[in-house]
Amino acid sequence: MYNRIAGQNLERIAALSDGLFAIAMTLIVLEIRVPPEASIHSDADLWRALLALSPRIVMYLMSFLTLGVFWVAQQTQLNYLTRADRDFAWIHIAFLAGVATMPFSTTLLGEFITYRTAMMVYWANIVLLCMTLYWSWRHARSAGLIKPDAPPQVDQVIERQIIVAQALYAFGMLLCLASTFLSIGFIFLVQIYYAVAPRLPRRFVSN
Amino acid sequence: MYNRIAGQNLERIAALSDGLFAIAMTLIVLEIRVPPEASIHSDADLWRALLALSPRIVMYLMSFLTLGVFWVAQQTQLNYLTRADRDFAWIHIAFLAGVATMPFSTTLLGEFITYRTAMMVYWANIVLLCMTLYWSWRHARSAGLIKPDAPPQVDQVIERQIIVAQALYAFGMLLCLASTFLSIGFIFLVQIYYAVAPRLPRRFVSN
Amino acid sequence: MYNRIAGQNLERIAALSDGLFAIAMTLIVLEIRVPPEASIHSDADLWRALLALSPRIVMYLMSFLTLGVFWVAQQTQLNYLTRADRDFAWIHIAFLAGVATMPFSTTLLGEFITYRTAMMVYWANIVLLCMTLYWSWRHARSAGLIKPDAPPQVDQVIERQIIVAQALYAFGMLLCLASTFLSIGFIFLVQIYYAVAPRLPRRFVSN
Amino acid sequence: MYNRIAGQNLERIAALSDGLFAIAMTLIVLEIRVPPEASIHSDADLWRALLALSPRIVMYLMSFLTLGVFWVAQQTQLNYLTRADRDFAWIHIAFLAGVATMPFSTTLLGEFITYRTAMMVYWANIVLLCMTLYWSWRHARSAGLIKPDAPPQVDQVIERQIIVAQALYAFGMLLCLASTFLSIGFIFLVQIYYAVAPRLPRRFVSN
Repeated sequence: MYNRIAGQNLERIAALSDGLFAIAMTLIVLEIRVPPEASIHSDADLWRALLALSPRIVMYLMSFLTLGVFWVAQQTQLNYLTRADRDFAWIHIAFLAGVATMPFSTTLLGEFITYRTAMMVYWANIVLLCMTLYWSWRHARSAGLIKPDAPPQVDQVIERQIIVAQALYAFGMLLCLASTFLSIGFIFLVQIYYAVAPRLPRRFVSN
Repeated sequence: MYNRIAGQNLERIAALSDGLFAIAMTLIVLEIRVPPEASIHSDADLWRALLALSPRIVMYLMSFLTLGVFWVAQQTQLNYLTRADRDFAWIHIAFLAGVATMPFSTTLLGEFITYRTAMMVYWANIVLLCMTLYWSWRHARSAGLIKPDAPPQVDQVIERQIIVAQALYAFGMLLCLASTFLSIGFIFLVQIYYAVAPRLPRRFVSN
Repeated sequence: MYNRIAGQNLERIAALSDGLFAIAMTLIVLEIRVPPEASIHSDADLWRALLALSPRIVMYLMSFLTLGVFWVAQQTQLNYLTRADRDFAWIHIAFLAGVATMPFSTTLLGEFITYRTAMMVYWANIVLLCMTLYWSWRHARSAGLIKPDAPPQVDQVIERQIIVAQALYAFGMLLCLASTFLSIGFIFLVQIYYAVAPRLPRRFVSN
Repeated sequence: MYNRIAGQNLERIAALSDGLFAIAMTLIVLEIRVPPEASIHSDADLWRALLALSPRIVMYLMSFLTLGVFWVAQQTQLNYLTRADRDFAWIHIAFLAGVATMPFSTTLLGEFITYRTAMMVYWANIVLLCMTLYWSWRHARSAGLIKPDAPPQVDQVIERQIIVAQALYAFGMLLCLASTFLSIGFIFLVQIYYAVAPRLPRRFVSN
């Protein structure tokens, strides 16, 4: 019985997360508004209106990537657990609060792309995601939720990865003192790096 | 076969619930609107516009917490069940109706934060969630849906917890005779209490 | 292997359905708009504005019930299946198309509550749901997807139930020749009847 | 342990996908707006207003079908896998980015149905879905993620099907040189063909 209930806990945390990620990912794209009909009189007009949307499309791609990075990270973490407890559930609800605010942060940065305040809110959102994920891992370790057969290096790898990511995001944030575009570009590259060449050795993740 | 179908019932109730909670949690945050572009001319403007949103952010945090409390409570309840029946499914659909109206109640209270009527609607929504959850537990017990190996004290603990919660929410509601802000603050504290220091002994919940 | 893949098919159809039902149920409630701030100057005003919303709230309750009825019906049907095939998946996608249009039909009837055309669209939506569900059951039977140990009466009971429901909805529809309110009231009662006193004997459903 | 984690990976990719598909399918229908109340004075008016929506309804039906085609295709592909890896997860996140943009592409084409640019965006979206699905299959094969007992022909059948589909969509796209309506009609027929008479022999799909 013990394992069944605990397993179900983990499954429901995963299900709630998948739902929230799915909605956040769709809403982020939804913010790219179709150009108003009245202003378009030819194919060339429409083409130009779509081109004008392109910085916004890049913004939303970045947020889609960000959500993807954190979805993969959370999934990896849950995979190493044998069960969840109530505190773990609450830490993940805090993590999901950060997921739910991504559409807001993205729209804010999309509207005010040259303002440092918008960049800071976006960065604070990413930091919240990083920190809750780090916290949930620490809690899982101290509460003995990790599978006994998880490779021992996993622990250091996951922690080191989160700390390096935090440092990279903080550096990206500081770049907005020069220009918010520089910040966005740098964070975008970091996300792509995490998607394409994950630091965490592959063998820990997929088997 | 018996168990498989029943199990599937439980799983689908859980899946529908996770979907609804995920959407309600995202929509609640979505109601925090990005300030209109025309009114912002500097970082200081944007900063002030975001500060002006802060009571609203507190409101939505409260609703996020409320949904979290009820998600954890429902999950705990479902964990003790061995199967579901049709009546149980319908009681949970009534519960989910209360989840689906949370974005409405939250927006109403956010718009009319000084009006007792808005506070009453919000409170009525929480009461509906409490009552349907209590009803579903009573039904589960009388219909023999509870796992035979659930610890016997669980029953009293769950019932007592719901009654205490109801009393606390009712008291919070009465505080709005003095001031709605007092009400909101008190209910907020109750939710945080349930998140951080759950009454239900931990050993009943996570194993 | 055979069973595993087929089972996964069924699970994914169920998961897609749960997602769609969850979203449709939330969007339907979302259409109850918070009264505009400018028109409200006292608690009495707000109270009156909320009372003015009450026919709309009844409408949306009806649609919530309708979605609940069809969710329970679909879940019951899937419980009797041992696997799915591609045609079955497509019939359910057609069924889900009907679920996805419920928010539209509900808003239309909410806006134009005295118009027979709106009532007809709403009724057509329910008929679509009934018919696709009936079709999926016929297909499941002819393609041999039903569990071998399903009680033999299930077949007639499910078919009879759908035919009776169709007749009741058609009668409700005809009542709109006299008044759309009569129609809505009658269909509302039918839905409550299905929720509270299901025709299908309980033992077929929950075990 | 190996299989359990890998299996959970697959399940979570499926769950995230089901969530995203469910939301995209509902949002697409949501874009069919209820006619404004002020312009309707009789049942005949409402009827005419709904008829005026019919090209739009056809458009959204087409997108619903498109999402259905790709949902079935993705589900079929996942059914043949024994586990997922991180790269596979990222390819599917790219696929889901294409799913999330379908509401945008559909609204764009709905608003600008006579413009080739809108048609091109819609087509590009479908191509993105096709290509990521093809890519994920190639990756699954080269990374050894496919079940050892999958029938050997599956491979060629899936690849051939994607290539034929691409050719058909490209032809449909070229038809918009003559008329976008011709394009839409042709692509609509292709989607119906995939729904009703799937090229992939049934025995590969459902058992």
